[in-house]
Amino acid sequence: MESHSSQSLKWMKEGYRYLMLGDISAKAAHLLSLPKISDFFTKLIQRVSPKSYQQAYGEVYVTQKFLENFSGDQVRFLARSFAVPGNHLGQQSHGFRWPYGPVAIITPFNFPLEIPVLQLMGALYMGNKPVLKVDSKVSIVMEKMLRLLHECGLPREDVDFINCDGNTMTKLLLEAKPRMTLFTGSSRVAEKLAVDLKGRIKLEDAGFDWKILGPDVQEVDYVAWVCDHDAYACSGQKCSAQSILFMHENWGRSPLLDTIKKHAARRELDDLTVGPVLTVNTEALLLHKNKLLKIPGSKLLFGGKALTNHSIPAIYGAIEPTAVFVPLEEILKDDNYELVTKEIFGPFQIVTEYKDNQLPMVLNALEKMHAHLTAAVVSNDVLFLQEVIGKSVNGTTYVGLRARTTGAPQNHWFGPAGDPRGAGIGTPEAIKLVWSCHREIIYDVGPIAQNWQIPRST
Amino acid sequence: MESHSSQSLKWMKEGYRYLMLGDISAKAAHLLSLPKISDFFTKLIQRVSPKSYQQAYGEVYVTQKFLENFSGDQVRFLARSFAVPGNHLGQQSHGFRWPYGPVAIITPFNFPLEIPVLQLMGALYMGNKPVLKVDSKVSIVMEKMLRLLHECGLPREDVDFINCDGNTMTKLLLEAKPRMTLFTGSSRVAEKLAVDLKGRIKLEDAGFDWKILGPDVQEVDYVAWVCDHDAYACSGQKCSAQSILFMHENWGRSPLLDTIKKHAARRELDDLTVGPVLTVNTEALLLHKNKLLKIPGSKLLFGGKALTNHSIPAIYGAIEPTAVFVPLEEILKDDNYELVTKEIFGPFQIVTEYKDNQLPMVLNALEKMHAHLTAAVVSNDVLFLQEVIGKSVNGTTYVGLRARTTGAPQNHWFGPAGDPRGAGIGTPEAIKLVWSCHREIIYDVGPIAQNWQIPRST
Amino acid sequence: MESHSSQSLKWMKEGYRYLMLGDISAKAAHLLSLPKISDFFTKLIQRVSPKSYQQAYGEVYVTQKFLENFSGDQVRFLARSFAVPGNHLGQQSHGFRWPYGPVAIITPFNFPLEIPVLQLMGALYMGNKPVLKVDSKVSIVMEKMLRLLHECGLPREDVDFINCDGNTMTKLLLEAKPRMTLFTGSSRVAEKLAVDLKGRIKLEDAGFDWKILGPDVQEVDYVAWVCDHDAYACSGQKCSAQSILFMHENWGRSPLLDTIKKHAARRELDDLTVGPVLTVNTEALLLHKNKLLKIPGSKLLFGGKALTNHSIPAIYGAIEPTAVFVPLEEILKDDNYELVTKEIFGPFQIVTEYKDNQLPMVLNALEKMHAHLTAAVVSNDVLFLQEVIGKSVNGTTYVGLRARTTGAPQNHWFGPAGDPRGAGIGTPEAIKLVWSCHREIIYDVGPIAQNWQIPRST
Amino acid sequence: MESHSSQSLKWMKEGYRYLMLGDISAKAAHLLSLPKISDFFTKLIQRVSPKSYQQAYGEVYVTQKFLENFSGDQVRFLARSFAVPGNHLGQQSHGFRWPYGPVAIITPFNFPLEIPVLQLMGALYMGNKPVLKVDSKVSIVMEKMLRLLHECGLPREDVDFINCDGNTMTKLLLEAKPRMTLFTGSSRVAEKLAVDLKGRIKLEDAGFDWKILGPDVQEVDYVAWVCDHDAYACSGQKCSAQSILFMHENWGRSPLLDTIKKHAARRELDDLTVGPVLTVNTEALLLHKNKLLKIPGSKLLFGGKALTNHSIPAIYGAIEPTAVFVPLEEILKDDNYELVTKEIFGPFQIVTEYKDNQLPMVLNALEKMHAHLTAAVVSNDVLFLQEVIGKSVNGTTYVGLRARTTGAPQNHWFGPAGDPRGAGIGTPEAIKLVWSCHREIIYDVGPIAQNWQIPRST
Repeated sequence: MESHSSQSLKWMKEGYRYLMLGDISAKAAHLLSLPKISDFFTKLIQRVSPKSYQQAYGEVYVTQKFLENFSGDQVRFLARSFAVPGNHLGQQSHGFRWPYGPVAIITPFNFPLEIPVLQLMGALYMGNKPVLKVDSKVSIVMEKMLRLLHECGLPREDVDFINCDGNTMTKLLLEAKPRMTLFTGSSRVAEKLAVDLKGRIKLEDAGFDWKILGPDVQEVDYVAWVCDHDAYACSGQKCSAQSILFMHENWGRSPLLDTIKKHAARRELDDLTVGPVLTVNTEALLLHKNKLLKIPGSKLLFGGKALTNHSIPAIYGAIEPTAVFVPLEEILKDDNYELVTKEIFGPFQIVTEYKDNQLPMVLNALEKMHAHLTAAVVSNDVLFLQEVIGKSVNGTTYVGLRARTTGAPQNHWFGPAGDPRGAGIGTPEAIKLVWSCHREIIYDVGPIAQNWQIPRST
Repeated sequence: MESHSSQSLKWMKEGYRYLMLGDISAKAAHLLSLPKISDFFTKLIQRVSPKSYQQAYGEVYVTQKFLENFSGDQVRFLARSFAVPGNHLGQQSHGFRWPYGPVAIITPFNFPLEIPVLQLMGALYMGNKPVLKVDSKVSIVMEKMLRLLHECGLPREDVDFINCDGNTMTKLLLEAKPRMTLFTGSSRVAEKLAVDLKGRIKLEDAGFDWKILGPDVQEVDYVAWVCDHDAYACSGQKCSAQSILFMHENWGRSPLLDTIKKHAARRELDDLTVGPVLTVNTEALLLHKNKLLKIPGSKLLFGGKALTNHSIPAIYGAIEPTAVFVPLEEILKDDNYELVTKEIFGPFQIVTEYKDNQLPMVLNALEKMHAHLTAAVVSNDVLFLQEVIGKSVNGTTYVGLRARTTGAPQNHWFGPAGDPRGAGIGTPEAIKLVWSCHREIIYDVGPIAQNWQIPRST
Repeated sequence: MESHSSQSLKWMKEGYRYLMLGDISAKAAHLLSLPKISDFFTKLIQRVSPKSYQQAYGEVYVTQKFLENFSGDQVRFLARSFAVPGNHLGQQSHGFRWPYGPVAIITPFNFPLEIPVLQLMGALYMGNKPVLKVDSKVSIVMEKMLRLLHECGLPREDVDFINCDGNTMTKLLLEAKPRMTLFTGSSRVAEKLAVDLKGRIKLEDAGFDWKILGPDVQEVDYVAWVCDHDAYACSGQKCSAQSILFMHENWGRSPLLDTIKKHAARRELDDLTVGPVLTVNTEALLLHKNKLLKIPGSKLLFGGKALTNHSIPAIYGAIEPTAVFVPLEEILKDDNYELVTKEIFGPFQIVTEYKDNQLPMVLNALEKMHAHLTAAVVSNDVLFLQEVIGKSVNGTTYVGLRARTTGAPQNHWFGPAGDPRGAGIGTPEAIKLVWSCHREIIYDVGPIAQNWQIPRST
Repeated sequence: MESHSSQSLKWMKEGYRYLMLGDISAKAAHLLSLPKISDFFTKLIQRVSPKSYQQAYGEVYVTQKFLENFSGDQVRFLARSFAVPGNHLGQQSHGFRWPYGPVAIITPFNFPLEIPVLQLMGALYMGNKPVLKVDSKVSIVMEKMLRLLHECGLPREDVDFINCDGNTMTKLLLEAKPRMTLFTGSSRVAEKLAVDLKGRIKLEDAGFDWKILGPDVQEVDYVAWVCDHDAYACSGQKCSAQSILFMHENWGRSPLLDTIKKHAARRELDDLTVGPVLTVNTEALLLHKNKLLKIPGSKLLFGGKALTNHSIPAIYGAIEPTAVFVPLEEILKDDNYELVTKEIFGPFQIVTEYKDNQLPMVLNALEKMHAHLTAAVVSNDVLFLQEVIGKSVNGTTYVGLRARTTGAPQNHWFGPAGDPRGAGIGTPEAIKLVWSCHREIIYDVGPIAQNWQIPRST
């Protein structure tokens, strides 16, 4: 791993690196815009990560748009610094976003193209020297993408690409001592790495993401469709997937749940609109459902059965899109809370209902959660929105009639909030916060006053 | 400790909190501008932290100016967010700096007023609920200051002020689980806390700070005076104190070192221009000096003796301002490097010399250092500056003829670089980076197209 | 008038000017916060500009807060520049906000303290050398304020204060050729000055300001009170006063108009809650009313009579707070439009009503207006707000249930939009846009490549 | 011309317009990156505007890079707004850059592709509806480019493209009343338009651009080459061309002038490294030279003769690259100043020399100039640079050893300073300042306090 300072130099000195990276981005974006190439990557993603064509294509598209965003001079514009006058003639303080130098990136199986490309390019844009590890099950996608980037002009020595298991990677990190490590993946591994690396880390881990439907019922068909999509697309294997739905009683009286159920029933293994769950097997999924159903008042809304007629290996999970209703009062009980809010990285959601005067209970339930990634408040009532936004902290919160929990495009921040280790992805803000630190350089060139005299000691 | 979300609500909802804090800042700044009050705090600082009147007054002055900076509407201006149009009519993404909620602040003995006030107010400005622990030896200063803030209108419940030892504080942190902890103090404690708190921390710890004198010799008197001040003011007990001086051979031929020696000799216990060293006793200081003098070619430039005729307790250190010359080649040897670059929090510096063609060796020496706090490059040669800045990473780097290592005013960033856990202090950027996190709220209110139809599942 | 460049130098060179102005602002803000002094200025304003104690005090308060905002380092923070890496090592482009140098400020009678102080200090903060002319009828207020600023440390040579009539001032401008002139006052004079000064001008002139009440009726008492305040405070002599009210028919069925009428009836000459109109005499006011009442369907809602039992000179106007209803269809007719939308700088408003399907007519009426200063859309219906905001262009537009047209605090931009000559007042953005221009300084220091060879001519 | 407000609506409402324009920019940039297409436009430019292949290609390249800069989401990022908390719960002020609506663009002959594309796209990016007039002699270039943009997806109705003479255009402007007109061209027309349009204009007009060589002589070959390029490329027909060279006497003793002379002698009609002057005929050029040579002490350094053996029509100018030396003392005399600083839009420069103590005279000469477009200070002496920068005001000022006057790339601001009517081109800052105005929208949605009571009238 290259040394820190010589990397900084590269950043500071070589204007052409900015221009080179702007060029590479423009070229790579153009290539990804060609149907032949986007189709190749879409299908390659599908071969290793179970999702529909359109979901896989979404990754390719977001990656293309991200690269367009940093075409031309936009990489150097990321390095924009500021300056403020000092205390006397000749003094001026400059605030820079400075690279760390050697850094590491570790990314998961569920977005084999989008997450590594966006984080890798962000690291490079800001002047770092990254080593990249993608989950080995899916790393072929990024291997192909790196070749495309090399073709577009990326020097081969700029990125170290490593294929290994987690333990080996941890050992490498402890020896190579990257200044910063970006980890996207499970909370369990994240917490361990945070200790191993003594906090020199940025994390984008799990989320038990919630959606609240406010008192103003409207556009039921649309909202139902978004709910299905948020909970079950990619078989729920998005860190932004809807894990729990808080429904105002007004919605309970609407056809909402029935409509969601219909949408869920349309999902099929054939086109991967439902598919294998990579981190929880079928038995564990059914067990979790059964535990939930033992809570007084809870009931199965739909799904809850193992898929049949498939060749999914037993180490993976395979169940129908599932929704379990649990009464709000029960969720808040200490005995139940942990069980209900356990993140299941699969096509599985909790549904509950609240009355007008129960909003504080809903907010209380949100507050007790550990991770604060995405959230949605479906309402156009400005005072209701104000109340829920003010009392919550999720990093990416959609509000309004069209609110959703999923959707991590390149045009807005995606990441958790409420944690100093929290990472973001995609936008200029995310890149600058994750991949650079503040450095202040104060120019103080004089002149020294002609009548300057040596002051007393202090 | 108050809960996270209800604090966020306070931030979001209560515009008047911004106005209240702007008001408090204006009033407190005005009080600190009154001679009677600034004199009171200056002398109170001197009673617990060994430094000259002028150095102690410096803390009061910086604190006053900091408070002026956040008068009126400037607290709410810190909360400035941005918004970007979305993908369709009615969608817009908003990027906020959001408070963490419950946070902790731990500050050291050497700046008993400035560091706690600036960090505490920063935490409050961004909407957090802080618990504050100041080193017990000096916490009386902050106790008085809190009373002044209460007098200016700060509600008593806004800050929890705790007096305890480090172990008790650690226990409290592990139980109360603040979302963020700001620690200013020794590297040893910092690293331990980083593990205990699993990285939910920002650090401003030690620095083995360097100064390089470039090839262009000018204004020798001025530069010598700055060197004396950087190395020995506050008896070297600033995290920004000059620990090593790299002198181009051209400076070696100038009267520089003799002049620094003369300045150092002016320092006296009487007015605390030299004083007790709180973290290293005399014996240890002399031992360190002797070890250094065993390195081939090294020599004592001046100082190096224990102070006499004083009543400083034996648990503290008391030596003359000291400078030890060590040849550059020796510094770089693996056997010597750790010894030479050991931070001594006292009136002690290393001096060395380099020739034109040895600049890479100097840069190599910098690169191997662990902490990257302050630095100075004394030169007006733009190409020389460009080379050294580009190959270093210290968070606060002064360059130009008047460059210094000390000086942490409220008008520019002060803090380390090269570490994602690095904290800053004082400026709007420092406050926002340390005391808030990014939160994105995406409004998506519709309308939904009249001809909208349910799409296929994905 | 001092020369341009030497002024620029002062800005660039003398860091202490920023600090000095920050100091002056802090001191002056503190003085204005003292009851004795704020009371003095409030009553002084009342003696020359007819408004209630509270309205006059509002000027003093806003001025105080504005000065607090630019205490300490905040003046130098206004001068913040940015830098972007160039095309090769050693090149970097810096974007500054640069002063014009000699500038002029011309301000009107209705805000004798707030407008001149905010614009004057803005001009000084950005490094200009201003000459200031306040309407002679009220210039005593600013004369006293200048003495206060001198007392706080403002050098006497920094501001030229001139008392003369408009013609003399025009002559002075044509000879002295200030680089920029800020004019606040009537549209007639503004347009003439724009030609005389060949466009080297920023304008904040009249506004025929509108308010729309949306379909969602709520909080009628509150909205009625705001309407009274917007239309009749300061006897309507604010450039932000409500000139026309578009009321959704749902509001027409509410007690709104009756409540406004009651509020208007509370206004009295005694406490100047209604008072003399300085630019239109009583006869002209009554004539205008009568012309309006000839429009088919129009009617007098309340007021419309000359005040009695007073000693207001005949050259001024003196009428009751007045509201005239005109049907929307009539307003839009070419024959009536100019008459109805004629700005009356007095306690006078037009009221009209629209049905759901007539919103496009309302928007059409807005579009035909010449000036675009303030506006209000009273509604919490997000889709309604979106429609009206998107189809209008007023510079300061309040929206939501509590929307108002008046209110020009120091914390948000106040000024017209849709005109490149438009000025703003008060905020950092306004100061920078009005009182400085962009200057780009590109550092390109080398080195030149050792193997550089002379290229072909191009 | 479409109405103002409906245009604003388009901007506000239709997120897709941003995305569409980002798409068009990416596609058009890609097309311009194809050799066949860039070669086509380069040669087309050469057919109508006399410049070398490389100079013409420069236009195509800058245009391509500019379009890359606004690919993907970067158009919507230009529309980034900000928000600040208000005075109470539910209030928040938002600052937008808002489009003007209908606008006009008038561009000159010398950059037939770069200037119209950059200004036109800037106008569109910010949401305006532009009418574009390019100098009829060269408008074929832009006609072809518009067809390319249509091919990339630009709706035909988005831009009105007009071919007419100046008088017709003025008439159109007076009737159509665009909210803003951008004029690039001669000072004479600019001043007239400013009056005609009552200041609703942004200008980028002439510049008598200066270069100062500081006391530190180094890299003479390089500096000489830059001088030749700055003065004579495009036959001096750039508004940024070097019009006068102030040379420290140290440079006078170097081979600088001889080297410039050699470079100038390499220029040939064949490859258009020298070519026809479109706005001054040969006779007038020679007359100007002769008048200058009558000044005491002045002398012809080189050039000064009419070109021979060519078919350039007599209405154009055709002379050798020319330099005339005039003593500094003479330049400053009132009788000579206007003559010496008359802008000649051709291959013609003044050269003069100054001694150390004459720098104030040089600065005085700069200060008296009318336009302040580009400038260069060739020196790496930081105190010298500080002095000259601080005492000058040119909008685009290059400083350092590699400083030049020409070069208007897309990555930094290009435009005059010191004039509120001054326009900029190319960068995000230029686009926002020229093509949008500030609009503040204050949300104030409540709630209203339950215990709210009607206040007294004010």
